[in-house]
Amino acid sequence: MKDELAVVLLSGGIDSAVTAAIANTSYRLAIIHFNYGQRNQSEETEAVKKLVRHFKPEKYLEVDLKFLKEIGGSSLTDRSLEIPQTMPQKGEIPNTYVPFRNGIMLSISSAWAEVIGAKHIFTGVVEEDSSGYPDTREVFIRAMETAINLGRRPESKLTIHTPLIHMRKSAIILKGVELGVPFDATWSCYRGGAIACGTCPSCRLRKQAFFEAGVIDPIKYEK
Amino acid sequence: MKDELAVVLLSGGIDSAVTAAIANTSYRLAIIHFNYGQRNQSEETEAVKKLVRHFKPEKYLEVDLKFLKEIGGSSLTDRSLEIPQTMPQKGEIPNTYVPFRNGIMLSISSAWAEVIGAKHIFTGVVEEDSSGYPDTREVFIRAMETAINLGRRPESKLTIHTPLIHMRKSAIILKGVELGVPFDATWSCYRGGAIACGTCPSCRLRKQAFFEAGVIDPIKYEK
Repeated sequence: MKDELAVVLLSGGIDSAVTAAIANTSYRLAIIHFNYGQRNQSEETEAVKKLVRHFKPEKYLEVDLKFLKEIGGSSLTDRSLEIPQTMPQKGEIPNTYVPFRNGIMLSISSAWAEVIGAKHIFTGVVEEDSSGYPDTREVFIRAMETAINLGRRPESKLTIHTPLIHMRKSAIILKGVELGVPFDATWSCYRGGAIACGTCPSCRLRKQAFFEAGVIDPIKYEK
Repeated sequence: MKDELAVVLLSGGIDSAVTAAIANTSYRLAIIHFNYGQRNQSEETEAVKKLVRHFKPEKYLEVDLKFLKEIGGSSLTDRSLEIPQTMPQKGEIPNTYVPFRNGIMLSISSAWAEVIGAKHIFTGVVEEDSSGYPDTREVFIRAMETAINLGRRPESKLTIHTPLIHMRKSAIILKGVELGVPFDATWSCYRGGAIACGTCPSCRLRKQAFFEAGVIDPIKYEK
Protein backbone atom coordinates (compact mmCIF):
# COMPACT_ATOMS: atom_id res chain seq x y z
CA MET A 1 0.00 0.00 0.00
CA LYS A 2 1.63 3.19 -1.18
CA ASP A 3 0.27 6.24 0.65
CA GLU A 4 2.47 9.05 -0.61
CA LEU A 5 2.83 10.64 -4.00
CA ALA A 6 6.26 11.40 -5.49
CA VAL A 7 7.15 13.54 -8.49
CA VAL A 8 9.77 11.83 -10.68
CA LEU A 9 11.76 13.77 -13.29
CA LEU A 10 11.95 11.51 -16.32
CA SER A 11 14.19 12.39 -19.26
CA GLY A 12 13.90 9.04 -21.01
CA GLY A 13 17.51 8.07 -20.20
CA ILE A 14 18.77 5.19 -18.10
CA ASP A 15 19.32 7.10 -14.86
CA SER A 16 15.86 8.61 -14.68
CA ALA A 17 14.20 5.32 -15.72
CA VAL A 18 15.96 3.44 -12.90
CA THR A 19 15.08 6.28 -10.51
CA ALA A 20 11.41 5.96 -11.47
CA ALA A 21 11.60 2.22 -10.82
CA ILE A 22 13.10 2.87 -7.36
CA ALA A 23 10.44 5.49 -6.53
CA ASN A 24 7.78 3.08 -7.75
CA THR A 25 8.68 0.55 -5.03
CA SER A 26 7.50 2.94 -2.27
CA TYR A 27 5.46 5.77 -3.75
CA ARG A 28 2.58 6.53 -6.08
CA LEU A 29 4.08 8.17 -9.16
CA ALA A 30 3.62 11.58 -10.77
CA ILE A 31 5.97 11.76 -13.75
CA ILE A 32 7.19 15.06 -15.21
CA HIS A 33 9.11 15.43 -18.47
CA PHE A 34 10.74 18.52 -19.97
CA ASN A 35 11.15 19.50 -23.59
CA TYR A 36 13.68 22.27 -24.02
CA GLY A 37 14.55 22.24 -27.68
CA GLN A 38 17.31 19.67 -27.11
CA ARG A 39 18.61 17.96 -30.23
CA ASN A 40 17.23 14.60 -29.17
CA GLN A 41 13.86 15.99 -28.02
CA SER A 42 11.65 13.74 -30.14
CA GLU A 43 13.68 10.61 -29.27
CA GLU A 44 13.58 11.47 -25.54
CA THR A 45 9.85 12.16 -25.61
CA GLU A 46 9.24 8.88 -27.47
CA ALA A 47 11.26 7.04 -24.78
CA VAL A 48 9.29 8.78 -22.03
CA LYS A 49 5.99 7.72 -23.62
CA LYS A 50 7.12 4.08 -23.61
CA LEU A 51 8.29 4.38 -19.99
CA VAL A 52 4.99 6.00 -18.99
CA ARG A 53 3.17 3.02 -20.49
CA HIS A 54 5.43 0.79 -18.38
CA PHE A 55 5.16 2.66 -15.08
CA LYS A 56 1.51 3.77 -15.41
CA PRO A 57 1.90 6.85 -13.18
CA GLU A 58 -1.11 8.44 -11.52
CA LYS A 59 -0.22 11.78 -13.07
CA TYR A 60 1.88 12.84 -16.02
CA LEU A 61 2.95 16.35 -17.03
CA GLU A 62 4.96 17.40 -20.07
CA VAL A 63 6.48 20.86 -19.74
CA ASP A 64 7.63 23.01 -22.63
CA LEU A 65 10.80 24.99 -21.86
CA LYS A 66 11.53 26.10 -25.39
CA PHE A 67 13.04 29.34 -24.06
CA LEU A 68 16.08 27.26 -23.05
CA LYS A 69 16.82 26.88 -26.73
CA GLU A 70 16.50 30.64 -27.14
CA ILE A 71 18.80 31.23 -24.15
CA GLY A 72 21.26 28.76 -25.69
CA GLY A 73 24.78 28.36 -24.31
CA SER A 74 24.88 24.58 -24.85
CA SER A 75 25.65 22.25 -27.74
CA LEU A 76 22.49 20.33 -26.80
CA THR A 77 20.26 23.28 -27.70
CA ASP A 78 22.46 25.30 -30.08
CA ARG A 79 23.18 23.44 -33.31
CA SER A 80 25.99 25.83 -34.21
CA LEU A 81 28.04 24.21 -31.41
CA GLU A 82 29.56 20.77 -32.00
CA ILE A 83 28.80 17.90 -29.62
CA PRO A 84 32.19 16.54 -28.49
CA GLN A 85 33.22 13.02 -29.55
CA THR A 86 35.31 12.41 -26.46
CA MET A 87 34.71 12.34 -22.71
CA PRO A 88 35.42 15.56 -20.79
CA GLN A 89 38.65 15.83 -18.80
CA LYS A 90 38.37 15.58 -15.01
CA GLY A 91 37.08 18.94 -13.67
CA GLU A 92 36.07 20.17 -17.13
CA ILE A 93 32.48 21.25 -17.76
CA PRO A 94 31.67 20.16 -21.33
CA ASN A 95 29.66 22.23 -23.79
CA THR A 96 26.74 19.80 -23.47
CA TYR A 97 26.05 21.43 -20.09
CA VAL A 98 22.75 23.37 -20.28
CA PRO A 99 22.93 26.40 -17.95
CA PHE A 100 21.15 25.64 -14.65
CA ARG A 101 18.91 23.05 -16.32
CA ASN A 102 18.45 20.98 -13.16
CA GLY A 103 17.74 24.07 -11.06
CA ILE A 104 15.00 25.12 -13.47
CA MET A 105 13.54 21.62 -13.65
CA LEU A 106 13.57 21.13 -9.87
CA SER A 107 11.94 24.54 -9.37
CA ILE A 108 9.10 23.69 -11.73
CA SER A 109 8.75 20.18 -10.30
CA SER A 110 8.44 21.65 -6.81
CA ALA A 111 5.64 23.98 -7.96
CA TRP A 112 3.75 21.01 -9.41
CA ALA A 113 4.48 18.93 -6.28
CA GLU A 114 2.92 21.63 -4.11
CA VAL A 115 -0.27 21.76 -6.17
CA ILE A 116 -0.77 17.98 -6.38
CA GLY A 117 0.22 17.41 -2.74
CA ALA A 118 3.47 15.50 -3.32
CA LYS A 119 6.10 15.79 -0.58
CA HIS A 120 8.80 13.95 -2.52
CA ILE A 121 10.77 14.59 -5.68
CA PHE A 122 12.99 11.96 -7.28
CA THR A 123 15.76 12.92 -9.68
CA GLY A 124 18.27 10.60 -11.31
CA VAL A 125 21.29 12.89 -11.07
CA VAL A 126 24.67 11.15 -10.73
CA GLU A 127 27.62 12.99 -9.23
CA GLU A 128 30.50 10.64 -9.88
CA ASP A 129 30.93 8.65 -13.09
CA SER A 130 28.87 11.27 -14.92
CA SER A 131 29.20 14.15 -17.33
CA GLY A 132 30.83 16.69 -15.00
CA TYR A 133 27.90 19.07 -14.67
CA PRO A 134 27.79 21.35 -11.58
CA ASP A 135 24.04 20.83 -11.14
CA THR A 136 24.27 17.08 -10.57
CA ARG A 137 26.31 17.40 -7.37
CA GLU A 138 24.82 16.56 -3.98
CA VAL A 139 25.90 19.92 -2.54
CA PHE A 140 23.76 21.62 -5.19
CA ILE A 141 20.74 19.35 -4.68
CA ARG A 142 20.76 19.99 -0.90
CA ALA A 143 21.04 23.78 -1.44
CA MET A 144 18.16 23.65 -3.91
CA GLU A 145 16.03 21.64 -1.46
CA THR A 146 16.66 24.30 1.19
CA ALA A 147 15.69 27.10 -1.19
CA ILE A 148 12.54 25.29 -2.33
CA ASN A 149 11.41 24.70 1.23
CA LEU A 150 11.93 28.36 2.12
CA GLY A 151 10.14 29.63 -0.99
CA ARG A 152 6.90 27.67 -0.81
CA ARG A 153 4.01 27.18 1.63
CA PRO A 154 5.57 25.88 4.89
CA GLU A 155 3.10 22.97 5.12
CA SER A 156 4.30 21.62 1.75
CA LYS A 157 7.85 20.82 2.90
CA LEU A 158 9.48 18.37 0.50
CA THR A 159 12.43 16.02 0.23
CA ILE A 160 14.50 15.65 -2.93
CA HIS A 161 15.56 12.02 -3.34
CA THR A 162 18.67 11.21 -5.38
CA PRO A 163 19.02 7.44 -5.06
CA LEU A 164 21.71 7.19 -7.75
CA ILE A 165 23.84 10.21 -6.89
CA HIS A 166 26.82 8.24 -5.57
CA MET A 167 26.40 5.10 -7.68
CA ARG A 168 28.58 3.99 -10.55
CA LYS A 169 26.78 3.79 -13.85
CA SER A 170 27.28 0.03 -14.02
CA ALA A 171 25.64 -0.40 -10.60
CA ILE A 172 22.71 1.68 -11.87
CA ILE A 173 22.28 -0.76 -14.76
CA LEU A 174 22.28 -3.72 -12.36
CA LYS A 175 19.72 -2.01 -10.15
CA GLY A 176 17.57 -1.44 -13.22
CA VAL A 177 17.82 -5.08 -14.23
CA GLU A 178 16.77 -6.10 -10.69
CA LEU A 179 13.71 -3.81 -10.91
CA GLY A 180 12.73 -4.85 -14.43
CA VAL A 181 13.42 -1.50 -16.13
CA PRO A 182 12.77 -1.85 -19.90
CA PHE A 183 16.14 -0.51 -21.09
CA ASP A 184 15.11 -1.05 -24.72
CA ALA A 185 12.65 1.83 -24.19
CA THR A 186 15.30 4.32 -23.00
CA TRP A 187 17.22 6.88 -25.05
CA SER A 188 20.66 8.22 -24.08
CA CYS A 189 22.26 9.57 -27.27
CA TYR A 190 22.79 13.35 -27.38
CA ARG A 191 22.12 13.31 -31.10
CA GLY A 192 18.70 12.59 -32.54
CA GLY A 193 18.18 9.93 -35.19
CA ALA A 194 16.75 6.50 -35.89
CA ILE A 195 19.44 4.79 -33.81
CA ALA A 196 21.98 6.00 -31.24
CA CYS A 197 25.29 7.31 -32.65
CA GLY A 198 27.49 5.32 -30.26
CA THR A 199 30.22 7.97 -30.20
CA CYS A 200 28.90 10.99 -28.26
CA PRO A 201 29.91 11.17 -24.57
CA SER A 202 26.46 10.02 -23.45
CA CYS A 203 26.53 6.92 -25.71
CA ARG A 204 30.09 6.19 -24.57
CA LEU A 205 29.10 6.36 -20.89
CA ARG A 206 26.15 4.04 -21.54
CA LYS A 207 28.10 1.45 -23.53
CA GLN A 208 30.92 1.40 -20.98
CA ALA A 209 28.40 0.96 -18.14
CA PHE A 210 26.63 -1.99 -19.76
CA PHE A 211 30.03 -3.53 -20.51
CA GLU A 212 31.19 -3.12 -16.90
CA ALA A 213 27.89 -4.47 -15.59
CA GLY A 214 28.16 -7.52 -17.83
CA VAL A 215 24.70 -6.85 -19.21
CA ILE A 216 23.78 -6.75 -22.89
CA ASP A 217 22.56 -3.33 -23.98
CA PRO A 218 19.31 -4.01 -25.87
CA ILE A 219 19.57 -0.93 -28.15
CA LYS A 220 21.40 -0.60 -31.45
CA TYR A 221 24.23 1.82 -32.24
CA GLU A 222 25.50 3.32 -35.49
CA LYS A 223 28.99 2.31 -34.39
CA MET B 1 30.65 54.49 -17.41
CA LYS B 2 28.78 51.29 -16.64
CA ASP B 3 30.97 48.21 -17.05
CA GLU B 4 28.81 45.40 -15.80
CA LEU B 5 25.63 43.89 -17.12
CA ALA B 6 22.68 43.12 -14.80
CA VAL B 7 19.59 41.03 -15.48
CA VAL B 8 16.45 42.75 -14.16
CA LEU B 9 13.19 40.86 -13.65
CA LEU B 10 10.45 43.20 -14.86
CA SER B 11 6.79 42.34 -14.27
CA GLY B 12 5.44 45.74 -15.24
CA GLY B 13 4.46 46.64 -11.67
CA ILE B 14 5.77 49.43 -9.47
CA ASP B 15 8.34 47.43 -7.55
CA SER B 16 10.11 45.97 -10.55
CA ALA B 17 10.02 49.31 -12.41
CA VAL B 18 11.71 51.10 -9.48
CA THR B 19 14.19 48.21 -9.21
CA ALA B 20 15.06 48.61 -12.90
CA ALA B 21 15.62 52.34 -12.33
CA ILE B 22 17.95 51.57 -9.41
CA ALA B 23 19.89 48.98 -11.43
CA ASN B 24 20.09 51.47 -14.28
CA THR B 25 22.11 53.90 -12.16
CA SER B 26 25.07 51.47 -11.97
CA TYR B 27 24.67 48.69 -14.54
CA ARG B 28 23.95 48.05 -18.19
CA LEU B 29 20.50 46.47 -18.36
CA ALA B 30 19.27 43.10 -19.61
CA ILE B 31 15.52 42.97 -18.94
CA ILE B 32 13.61 39.69 -18.63
CA HIS B 33 9.82 39.38 -18.49
CA PHE B 34 7.69 36.29 -17.82
CA ASN B 35 4.29 35.41 -19.18
CA TYR B 36 2.68 32.59 -17.23
CA GLY B 37 -0.96 32.70 -18.17
CA GLN B 38 -1.71 35.20 -15.40
CA ARG B 39 -5.08 36.98 -15.68
CA ASN B 40 -3.43 40.34 -16.30
CA GLN B 41 -0.84 38.99 -18.76
CA SER B 42 -1.64 41.33 -21.65
CA GLU B 43 -1.77 44.40 -19.38
CA GLU B 44 1.54 43.45 -17.74
CA THR B 45 3.23 42.81 -21.07
CA GLU B 46 1.92 46.15 -22.39
CA ALA B 47 3.37 47.88 -19.30
CA VAL B 48 6.70 46.10 -19.80
CA LYS B 49 6.86 47.26 -23.43
CA LYS B 50 6.39 50.87 -22.33
CA LEU B 51 9.04 50.48 -19.62
CA VAL B 52 11.45 48.87 -22.10
CA ARG B 53 11.01 51.93 -24.34
CA HIS B 54 11.84 54.06 -21.28
CA PHE B 55 14.87 52.12 -20.02
CA LYS B 56 16.27 51.08 -23.43
CA PRO B 57 18.02 47.93 -22.13
CA GLU B 58 20.86 46.36 -24.07
CA LYS B 59 19.03 43.03 -24.09
CA TYR B 60 15.43 42.01 -23.66
CA LEU B 61 13.97 38.51 -23.27
CA GLU B 62 10.32 37.53 -22.95
CA VAL B 63 9.85 34.03 -21.55
CA ASP B 64 6.73 31.92 -21.93
CA LEU B 65 5.89 29.87 -18.84
CA LYS B 66 2.42 28.85 -19.86
CA PHE B 67 2.85 25.55 -18.01
CA LEU B 68 2.34 27.55 -14.79
CA LYS B 69 -1.27 28.03 -15.84
CA GLU B 70 -1.54 24.27 -16.41
CA ILE B 71 0.02 23.57 -13.00
CA GLY B 72 -2.45 26.05 -11.48
CA GLY B 73 -2.89 26.36 -7.72
CA SER B 74 -3.34 30.14 -7.78
CA SER B 75 -6.23 32.51 -8.41
CA LEU B 76 -3.88 34.47 -10.70
CA THR B 77 -3.67 31.58 -13.16
CA ASP B 78 -6.84 29.58 -12.40
CA ARG B 79 -10.00 31.49 -13.21
CA SER B 80 -12.15 29.09 -11.23
CA LEU B 81 -10.62 30.59 -8.06
CA GLU B 82 -11.80 34.04 -6.90
CA ILE B 83 -9.29 36.84 -6.38
CA PRO B 84 -9.87 38.11 -2.82
CA GLN B 85 -11.25 41.61 -2.33
CA THR B 86 -9.50 42.11 1.00
CA MET B 87 -5.92 42.12 2.23
CA PRO B 88 -4.59 38.83 3.68
CA GLN B 89 -4.36 38.46 7.46
CA LYS B 90 -0.89 38.62 9.02
CA GLY B 91 0.86 35.27 8.39
CA GLU B 92 -1.73 34.13 5.84
CA ILE B 93 -0.60 33.14 2.34
CA PRO B 94 -3.35 34.34 -0.01
CA ASN B 95 -4.61 32.35 -3.00
CA THR B 96 -2.93 34.83 -5.37
CA TYR B 97 0.36 33.13 -4.44
CA VAL B 98 1.72 31.26 -7.48
CA PRO B 99 3.64 28.16 -6.32
CA PHE B 100 7.40 28.86 -6.34
CA ARG B 101 7.02 31.52 -9.02
CA ASN B 102 10.05 33.53 -7.90
CA GLY B 103 12.19 30.40 -7.62
CA ILE B 104 11.34 29.45 -11.18
CA MET B 105 11.92 32.98 -12.48
CA LEU B 106 15.25 33.37 -10.66
CA SER B 107 16.40 29.97 -11.96
CA ILE B 108 15.67 30.92 -15.55
CA SER B 109 17.15 34.40 -15.10
CA SER B 110 20.35 32.85 -13.78
CA ALA B 111 20.62 30.61 -16.85
CA TRP B 112 20.27 33.65 -19.13
CA ALA B 113 22.71 35.62 -16.95
CA GLU B 114 25.33 32.90 -17.38
CA VAL B 115 25.02 32.86 -21.17
CA ILE B 116 25.12 36.67 -21.60
CA GLY B 117 27.85 37.12 -19.01
CA ALA B 118 25.85 39.00 -16.36
CA LYS B 119 27.04 38.60 -12.76
CA HIS B 120 24.09 40.43 -11.23
CA ILE B 121 20.36 39.82 -10.99
CA PHE B 122 17.95 42.48 -9.71
CA THR B 123 14.51 41.54 -8.41
CA GLY B 124 11.93 43.87 -6.90
CA VAL B 125 10.70 41.51 -4.19
CA VAL B 126 9.43 43.19 -1.01
CA GLU B 127 9.34 41.26 2.27
CA GLU B 128 7.44 43.59 4.56
CA ASP B 129 4.45 45.64 3.50
CA SER B 130 3.76 43.11 0.79
CA SER B 131 1.44 40.28 -0.16
CA GLY B 132 2.68 37.67 2.32
CA TYR B 133 4.32 35.32 -0.19
CA PRO B 134 7.07 32.96 1.09
CA ASP B 135 9.22 33.53 -2.00
CA THR B 136 9.67 37.26 -1.43
CA ARG B 137 11.55 36.83 1.86
CA GLU B 138 15.24 37.61 2.16
CA VAL B 139 15.96 34.20 3.70
CA PHE B 140 14.60 32.58 0.52
CA ILE B 141 16.51 34.88 -1.84
CA ARG B 142 19.82 34.15 -0.09
CA ALA B 143 19.15 30.38 -0.19
CA MET B 144 18.33 30.62 -3.89
CA GLU B 145 21.52 32.60 -4.55
CA THR B 146 23.53 29.86 -2.84
CA ALA B 147 21.82 27.13 -4.88
CA ILE B 148 22.33 29.03 -8.14
CA ASN B 149 26.02 29.55 -7.45
CA LEU B 150 26.48 25.84 -6.68
CA GLY B 151 24.56 24.72 -9.76
CA ARG B 152 26.29 26.72 -12.49
CA ARG B 153 29.78 27.17 -13.88
CA PRO B 154 31.95 28.38 -10.95
CA GLU B 155 33.36 31.31 -12.93
CA SER B 156 29.85 32.74 -13.42
CA LYS B 157 29.18 33.45 -9.72
CA LEU B 158 26.36 35.94 -9.35
CA THR B 159 24.78 38.22 -6.79
CA ILE B 160 21.03 38.65 -6.43
CA HIS B 161 20.22 42.27 -5.59
CA THR B 162 16.97 43.07 -3.78
CA PRO B 163 17.14 46.82 -3.22
CA LEU B 164 13.50 47.10 -2.09
CA ILE B 165 13.22 44.04 0.11
CA HIS B 166 13.02 45.93 3.40
CA MET B 167 11.39 49.13 2.13
CA ARG B 168 7.84 50.27 2.76
CA LYS B 169 5.78 50.57 -0.39
CA SER B 170 5.44 54.34 0.09
CA ALA B 171 9.24 54.72 0.24
CA ILE B 172 9.46 52.70 -2.98
CA ILE B 173 7.14 55.22 -4.66
CA LEU B 174 9.30 58.12 -3.46
CA LYS B 175 12.44 56.40 -4.74
CA GLY B 176 10.73 55.94 -8.10
CA VAL B 177 9.77 59.63 -8.23
CA GLU B 178 13.40 60.56 -7.49
CA LEU B 179 14.62 58.32 -10.36
CA GLY B 180 11.97 59.48 -12.83
CA VAL B 181 10.10 56.16 -13.10
CA PRO B 182 7.11 56.58 -15.44
CA PHE B 183 4.44 55.25 -13.06
CA ASP B 184 1.72 55.88 -15.65
CA ALA B 185 3.31 53.03 -17.67
CA THR B 186 3.08 50.49 -14.82
CA TRP B 187 0.32 47.94 -14.15
CA SER B 188 -0.45 46.52 -10.70
CA CYS B 189 -4.04 45.23 -10.84
CA TYR B 190 -4.42 41.43 -10.49
CA ARG B 191 -7.40 41.58 -12.84
CA GLY B 192 -7.08 42.40 -16.51
CA GLY B 193 -9.12 45.13 -18.12
CA ALA B 194 -9.02 48.59 -19.63
CA ILE B 195 -8.42 50.22 -16.24
CA ALA B 196 -7.35 48.89 -12.84
CA CYS B 197 -10.16 47.56 -10.61
CA GLY B 198 -9.07 49.46 -7.50
CA THR B 199 -10.34 46.78 -5.13
CA CYS B 200 -8.06 43.72 -5.47
CA PRO B 201 -5.27 43.41 -2.87
CA SER B 202 -2.65 44.63 -5.33
CA CYS B 203 -4.64 47.77 -6.25
CA ARG B 204 -5.28 48.40 -2.55
CA LEU B 205 -1.57 48.15 -1.70
CA ARG B 206 -0.72 50.53 -4.54
CA LYS B 207 -3.36 53.13 -3.69
CA GLN B 208 -2.43 53.08 -0.01
CA ALA B 209 1.26 53.47 -0.88
CA PHE B 210 0.72 56.51 -3.12
CA PHE B 211 -1.53 58.02 -0.43
CA GLU B 212 1.12 57.49 2.28
CA ALA B 213 3.84 58.87 0.02
CA GLY B 214 1.78 61.99 -0.71
CA VAL B 215 2.17 61.40 -4.42
CA ILE B 216 -0.66 61.41 -6.97
CA ASP B 217 -1.08 58.02 -8.67
CA PRO B 218 -1.22 58.79 -12.41
CA ILE B 219 -3.38 55.79 -13.31
CA LYS B 220 -7.19 55.51 -13.26
CA TYR B 221 -9.23 53.03 -11.21
CA GLU B 222 -12.71 51.61 -11.65
CA LYS B 223 -13.38 52.55 -8.03
